[in-house]
Amino acid sequence: MTLRNDINFDEDHRYTPVLDHGFVGLVDYMGSDADIVSAARVSYGSGTKTVNTDRGLIRYLMRHEHTTPFEMCEVKFHIKLPIFVMRQLVRHRTASMNEYSARYSVITDEFYVPETSALKKQSMTNKQGRDGDLTEKEIDFILDDMKNTWKNNYTVYQHHIDEYKLARETARSILPVGGYTECYWKANLKNFLHMARLRMDSHAQWEIQEFARAMYELVKPLFPIACKAFEDYQVNSIKLSAQEVQLMRRLINSEAWLDLTEDFRSDGGIAKHFDLSERELNEFKKKWAF
Amino acid sequence: MTLRNDINFDEDHRYTPVLDHGFVGLVDYMGSDADIVSAARVSYGSGTKTVNTDRGLIRYLMRHEHTTPFEMCEVKFHIKLPIFVMRQLVRHRTASMNEYSARYSVITDEFYVPETSALKKQSMTNKQGRDGDLTEKEIDFILDDMKNTWKNNYTVYQHHIDEYKLARETARSILPVGGYTECYWKANLKNFLHMARLRMDSHAQWEIQEFARAMYELVKPLFPIACKAFEDYQVNSIKLSAQEVQLMRRLINSEAWLDLTEDFRSDGGIAKHFDLSERELNEFKKKWAF
Amino acid sequence: MTLRNDINFDEDHRYTPVLDHGFVGLVDYMGSDADIVSAARVSYGSGTKTVNTDRGLIRYLMRHEHTTPFEMCEVKFHIKLPIFVMRQLVRHRTASMNEYSARYSVITDEFYVPETSALKKQSMTNKQGRDGDLTEKEIDFILDDMKNTWKNNYTVYQHHIDEYKLARETARSILPVGGYTECYWKANLKNFLHMARLRMDSHAQWEIQEFARAMYELVKPLFPIACKAFEDYQVNSIKLSAQEVQLMRRLINSEAWLDLTEDFRSDGGIAKHFDLSERELNEFKKKWAF
Amino acid sequence: MTLRNDINFDEDHRYTPVLDHGFVGLVDYMGSDADIVSAARVSYGSGTKTVNTDRGLIRYLMRHEHTTPFEMCEVKFHIKLPIFVMRQLVRHRTASMNEYSARYSVITDEFYVPETSALKKQSMTNKQGRDGDLTEKEIDFILDDMKNTWKNNYTVYQHHIDEYKLARETARSILPVGGYTECYWKANLKNFLHMARLRMDSHAQWEIQEFARAMYELVKPLFPIACKAFEDYQVNSIKLSAQEVQLMRRLINSEAWLDLTEDFRSDGGIAKHFDLSERELNEFKKKWAF
Repeated sequence: MTLRNDINFDEDHRYTPVLDHGFVGLVDYMGSDADIVSAARVSYGSGTKTVNTDRGLIRYLMRHEHTTPFEMCEVKFHIKLPIFVMRQLVRHRTASMNEYSARYSVITDEFYVPETSALKKQSMTNKQGRDGDLTEKEIDFILDDMKNTWKNNYTVYQHHIDEYKLARETARSILPVGGYTECYWKANLKNFLHMARLRMDSHAQWEIQEFARAMYELVKPLFPIACKAFEDYQVNSIKLSAQEVQLMRRLINSEAWLDLTEDFRSDGGIAKHFDLSERELNEFKKKWAF
Repeated sequence: MTLRNDINFDEDHRYTPVLDHGFVGLVDYMGSDADIVSAARVSYGSGTKTVNTDRGLIRYLMRHEHTTPFEMCEVKFHIKLPIFVMRQLVRHRTASMNEYSARYSVITDEFYVPETSALKKQSMTNKQGRDGDLTEKEIDFILDDMKNTWKNNYTVYQHHIDEYKLARETARSILPVGGYTECYWKANLKNFLHMARLRMDSHAQWEIQEFARAMYELVKPLFPIACKAFEDYQVNSIKLSAQEVQLMRRLINSEAWLDLTEDFRSDGGIAKHFDLSERELNEFKKKWAF
Repeated sequence: MTLRNDINFDEDHRYTPVLDHGFVGLVDYMGSDADIVSAARVSYGSGTKTVNTDRGLIRYLMRHEHTTPFEMCEVKFHIKLPIFVMRQLVRHRTASMNEYSARYSVITDEFYVPETSALKKQSMTNKQGRDGDLTEKEIDFILDDMKNTWKNNYTVYQHHIDEYKLARETARSILPVGGYTECYWKANLKNFLHMARLRMDSHAQWEIQEFARAMYELVKPLFPIACKAFEDYQVNSIKLSAQEVQLMRRLINSEAWLDLTEDFRSDGGIAKHFDLSERELNEFKKKWAF
Repeated sequence: MTLRNDINFDEDHRYTPVLDHGFVGLVDYMGSDADIVSAARVSYGSGTKTVNTDRGLIRYLMRHEHTTPFEMCEVKFHIKLPIFVMRQLVRHRTASMNEYSARYSVITDEFYVPETSALKKQSMTNKQGRDGDLTEKEIDFILDDMKNTWKNNYTVYQHHIDEYKLARETARSILPVGGYTECYWKANLKNFLHMARLRMDSHAQWEIQEFARAMYELVKPLFPIACKAFEDYQVNSIKLSAQEVQLMRRLINSEAWLDLTEDFRSDGGIAKHFDLSERELNEFKKKWAF
């Protein structure tokens, strides 16, 4: 058995190529926005139907962290990715996973070589980030080193397996974490979105961001309302600490701002302009003690 | 909103009635025996194809507790059940669940009244079991008491809600745990089978056994190979302790048994007679140090 | 065996009485603020020591949802609580739990009767809340009903057990969810704080708020830095949706506010006044695109 | 920050060296055999005290998979191990973990080089095992290759970091999975024992067996009764399938064995001889339909 490298991305639209040899495929799923609603209504009662459309209910659930109805949906992926990315993905413990085993099977000769634009210096301000350009020459040297190192290691690996019949589980120990592996990965929608939020974040390593984004793009059309709510209330939300809340309250309630906030107080079209429901505007005012 | 009591069991074959007012419905699922195999083959390699049929592989996985491939399948139920059974079901923490809320909605007038055959005395030997017959008269008294108690409590509950407009979350505190509730319940196949094994067991309370069996019967046709393996290697298996193993080894290896075990040693048709594969017979012999 | 009602709250300060017959006791714990720091430093390196005090590091972890180091601590409680509260507590699936079994043991004659101040009408605006006063007379009627209902049910329960020797697991089905039960409950600090935040929230049922607050007060002195960070960045934080962020940005960046925000832009003592570190003020400014 | 290589194993007896550069340290724990008993008694009642000693109760719990009381204890380790072993350990999702980050910190120059005795050929019968001797000369070649490969990769890695200031998260991609990493790892006793059973098993890779055994040896003195029960009912137990049970039943009940099993039927000292309690002997007889 070898890692899969025969996906036809033009024909199979459930699959998306990622990095140089990787991919993400959405191979199965369960449920829809409507199933989130059904699960919620068993708790909250059909009475909620009168005040909430399905869209309104899903957005309410997301906004207020009533996350259990989102567990009623599942997404299942087939992923090929570098080992160092796999090592980050596997930390999400609420997922189910089966990975290619280098004890059972011989590793394929595929190693992640970054695009030029992904090669950066160590960030000085962010201890776990990259920031600052390398010269073209430096990039050439680095890429050559990477390719040669892998080639050398892989040659030794093959030699040990073919020539000495060394146990695969021992032979693989010299293979770099930039080599590719493959897995099935499955999670419920709640836990998938949690992973996606953390790994699409700009603080995550760029390579796993690429995988998380590709996964998210495949999921989004299946649960359009839930995903829009996720973007509005999670991805693009901002959390203010107790101290920051105090500061903002002071500013907002100050004299000089009165004129400006008049519209806000009276809702002079503000709700519509900013795409807030009446309920949301009221929740928002309460946040600032209006 | 009220609890569902309008399921047509004759027409909707995904639903099974359980106890007097309850039911179990299999409302969604994901995957099949083939998906268990796919997940396993990503780890173990397609090379396993040559030595194992799909059936052989699934049985091997179940036998050796390689349980992660079974996580690739999901089953989702709609269940109506007494609260005291719900309290046992909810202890399986790997499931997703949304339950009818007595804070949001008024509880319906439905209470579990056991069939005559389910009313037994407290077992003297099993501190958590029932055993020993009651007289017909005793049964009549008990059933009358149960019905009257519920009727009385429910009348008070309704009165508090209708007359005093008492908060539902407070009013419900006088309602007995024999009252019915409703939920969606979803788990992956591995965790479902784990729950099913523990709750179909004769030591579980009879009422939850009824629910577990109804759930299992709905799942079985969807994953026939996995479920047969589950029955052979889990439900109907026997575990011997270290001490018991010693004892059996002594008996099996003893002189007097030599003749009898001759067939066993040489496999004089024993494998076929007992439906053991050659591999299983070898595993079995190893268990007894043959 | 009976439920525990012999705790001496004056002498045993690890135990706090809750509601009329309940309690919360912190019976064991593991770790300290320092252990959170150690776990984080294995990931982030001792280099973080130069820029962060322990306090700064813990607050950074809490602020940025780096929650795994908080899993290194554990808290274990002994709790006596009404069944309907237990039914809410058990939904936190990441905890370990052992509960008094009404199959093994006879239930004790203890039922939750709310204080007068806790009896309210059903809220009209909040489908799951209580709001609006009852008359003194109404309260008297309700409390009498509750006490009589329980008394009646418990008498029947005892009769069934003593007279007919009815199986305990069957007899208990007529006992109301306001009756008391008892458990050990254990979680790691991350999951404990998650439960505490959700259940101390004003939308949770008042009775479980009381338990959550009592638990939190016992935990707080053990992890003072982590708990302060939890209050600042979780409990008393505010989340703004994408839409709300747009609205605030508009207001903040508007002409009329320029004078007022001058101090803010230049940090004219604002950081100190609002107890923000320099790092936090910078993070805050970035939130508003300054 | 660098990986820890300054543990004094002679002085610090909580730490055990494993493989060439690794170690396992038991840095904290919570609970004892007595806490397992307390948790069980809250469910089963103090009445169990009369029929069960603490030892008897713990063994009963283990034998019958009543595993929740074992969750009341915790064990926390500090471990240094090769990445490929870490990749196996991390699959146990019920543990808490913080690992050294190669994004934050530079990787240390430490690579796992197997002892001569651990270098074997690929097993022909076991697709994931090692079996069959290599010649001394082959071993020398392999070990040289391994050392040289690592040395070469590490030199390039250092060069990229020192000379080009390449981001650490990118530079590390050429480092082999035989390199060392470090973590804190914490689990409750139930989940620890589950991991230990699977990873001490002879089918696990030998290297993780070494770590699992070292961990288990540190845990055993803390929970002596639970660990003895674990060995008797889990590690050294044997599971018979439904088919095997049929076979054994036939043999046991057969004519020729009657004499031999007479002692067994009448317990002619058999219980004592095989260290079975009376209860266990009865359970055992039931297993064979006696």
